Amino acid sequence: MGFAKSYFTDDPSDPVPLIVKTKRRVRFEEVDMLGIVWHGNYVSFLDDGRVALGDRFPAVSYARMQEERMAAPIVQLHIDYQAPLIFGDIMQIETTLHWTDALRLNFSYRITKEDGRPAIKAYTVQLFTDLQGAVLLIPPVWVTEFREQWKSGKLA
Amino acid sequence: MGFAKSYFTDDPSDPVPLIVKTKRRVRFEEVDMLGIVWHGNYVSFLDDGRVALGDRFPAVSYARMQEERMAAPIVQLHIDYQAPLIFGDIMQIETTLHWTDALRLNFSYRITKEDGRPAIKAYTVQLFTDLQGAVLLIPPVWVTEFREQWKSGKLA
Amino acid sequence: MGFAKSYFTDDPSDPVPLIVKTKRRVRFEEVDMLGIVWHGNYVSFLDDGRVALGDRFPAVSYARMQEERMAAPIVQLHIDYQAPLIFGDIMQIETTLHWTDALRLNFSYRITKEDGRPAIKAYTVQLFTDLQGAVLLIPPVWVTEFREQWKSGKLA
Amino acid sequence: MGFAKSYFTDDPSDPVPLIVKTKRRVRFEEVDMLGIVWHGNYVSFLDDGRVALGDRFPAVSYARMQEERMAAPIVQLHIDYQAPLIFGDIMQIETTLHWTDALRLNFSYRITKEDGRPAIKAYTVQLFTDLQGAVLLIPPVWVTEFREQWKSGKLA
Repeated sequence: MGFAKSYFTDDPSDPVPLIVKTKRRVRFEEVDMLGIVWHGNYVSFLDDGRVALGDRFPAVSYARMQEERMAAPIVQLHIDYQAPLIFGDIMQIETTLHWTDALRLNFSYRITKEDGRPAIKAYTVQLFTDLQGAVLLIPPVWVTEFREQWKSGKLA
Repeated sequence: MGFAKSYFTDDPSDPVPLIVKTKRRVRFEEVDMLGIVWHGNYVSFLDDGRVALGDRFPAVSYARMQEERMAAPIVQLHIDYQAPLIFGDIMQIETTLHWTDALRLNFSYRITKEDGRPAIKAYTVQLFTDLQGAVLLIPPVWVTEFREQWKSGKLA
Repeated sequence: MGFAKSYFTDDPSDPVPLIVKTKRRVRFEEVDMLGIVWHGNYVSFLDDGRVALGDRFPAVSYARMQEERMAAPIVQLHIDYQAPLIFGDIMQIETTLHWTDALRLNFSYRITKEDGRPAIKAYTVQLFTDLQGAVLLIPPVWVTEFREQWKSGKLA
Repeated sequence: MGFAKSYFTDDPSDPVPLIVKTKRRVRFEEVDMLGIVWHGNYVSFLDDGRVALGDRFPAVSYARMQEERMAAPIVQLHIDYQAPLIFGDIMQIETTLHWTDALRLNFSYRITKEDGRPAIKAYTVQLFTDLQGAVLLIPPVWVTEFREQWKSGKLA
């Protein structure tokens, strides 16, 4: 159960991962009685990371999912805590979408403190489903288009 | 990144794991616009599981940590989502504390729906620290005592 | 802006208010860095109170709203904080549904500490709407039935 | 229990209220199964408003409270809900600090949707306490200085 060096293996022949950085301040209500951010609140920070990536690449945004009447539920979540964030910290969230041939979204995350020290690293895996929760087995057109663009190097 | 069969290997020669079950109803505010419990809220359910185990075995309760002026921050969290909980569900949280020779708390969890179907499985790893966050390297007396009792079979 | 003695005036000729009490433990994640429950978390405690009252009087439960494809959104919320709850506290939530001739739900609440000292008092006002959020002007049959039962003294 | 026109009466001879506006996007996890922001989450938005005002006027910021080893707990909270925020909404939070001769902080808030339509209006009242929760009866020097500056018109 040691810390993995890398959660996903990016094959050199794969399209390059998509990376977006965003900043966010720790909120008062996120800090527990020990003076550190409660561990469950980091799940929200990962969401902030995905939202920032969705702003940059709208094909993987919540808004697009809604439009297409689909969902991308998280099926796996993993967080390695390295150093606690405290009240007043302005964290940097670096979010990476990794290429995969499978019909899923593989995200990894690094959250760092202002001085660059790591706070957490994490990953999530999402599947695509319809609004009733049935997993999609065939990629929808817009996902295929997004992957084509990514492959062609037009996104980076 | 497939689902692990078992997160921790319980050696047959180790003290038997400590297992506690508790029930909890899904709250209205925990359900998202897709009608399922938001994935981040499951972290609270794991906390409920640990609290139930701490009620049964006070040596690993929050109250005891406070008394001893220590903390047991989570350094690793992993959740595999199997089927979504929905509003009105009464979940069962089965929490297991696994024996380890290391100075840490290894918990695994299974949350099931009322009909017994699995909702999630998960694990967390905690270290012991003082209130300034410095990791303890030598087990405090009360932890040693708890482990002795566990070994002797008095807890099961 | 002083503390009101009573939020709703119960006319002696009105049906008696419906009162339900429930208990709940403060959760670790609800406590802030000052060691007291964060003020926003009390809104969840009021929800617990309404759920307990809905368990006793199913006509005003979330489940019934869902069945009837209606909602009862909160249009007014007011909390007077008297003494902070802290970690480990087991609070008692006393929830009162007050009679009103209007098509709304008037709830008041008293949360007390284990020793009986008041923690907060509060009230909420809810309207009835359809699932698109349009306010109902004519009471649905089941609401009328509930009110008839209440008037006839069969609920108390 | 109608909607108050104004929560606090600003006397024309008083120092002008301090007003700060900030924007914030609705988060996915804040939206409930009816597709609208859960009513309890607005308490966080009010906090965002106060933080924005504290950024502009550091004398009333959390950071300053921490430095001075004091707290300003909320003793009264009131929200009037006018129209629900939904996922994707970018709200504007207008926060006003009203002058008062008493040793308290009187805030009012207006949250509006992007098209200017009102979502909620609200107010909070805070007292000053030491870290043990004892209410301050005599204003600390830095609060007096802040009030002097405010009176002299140097803040507006």
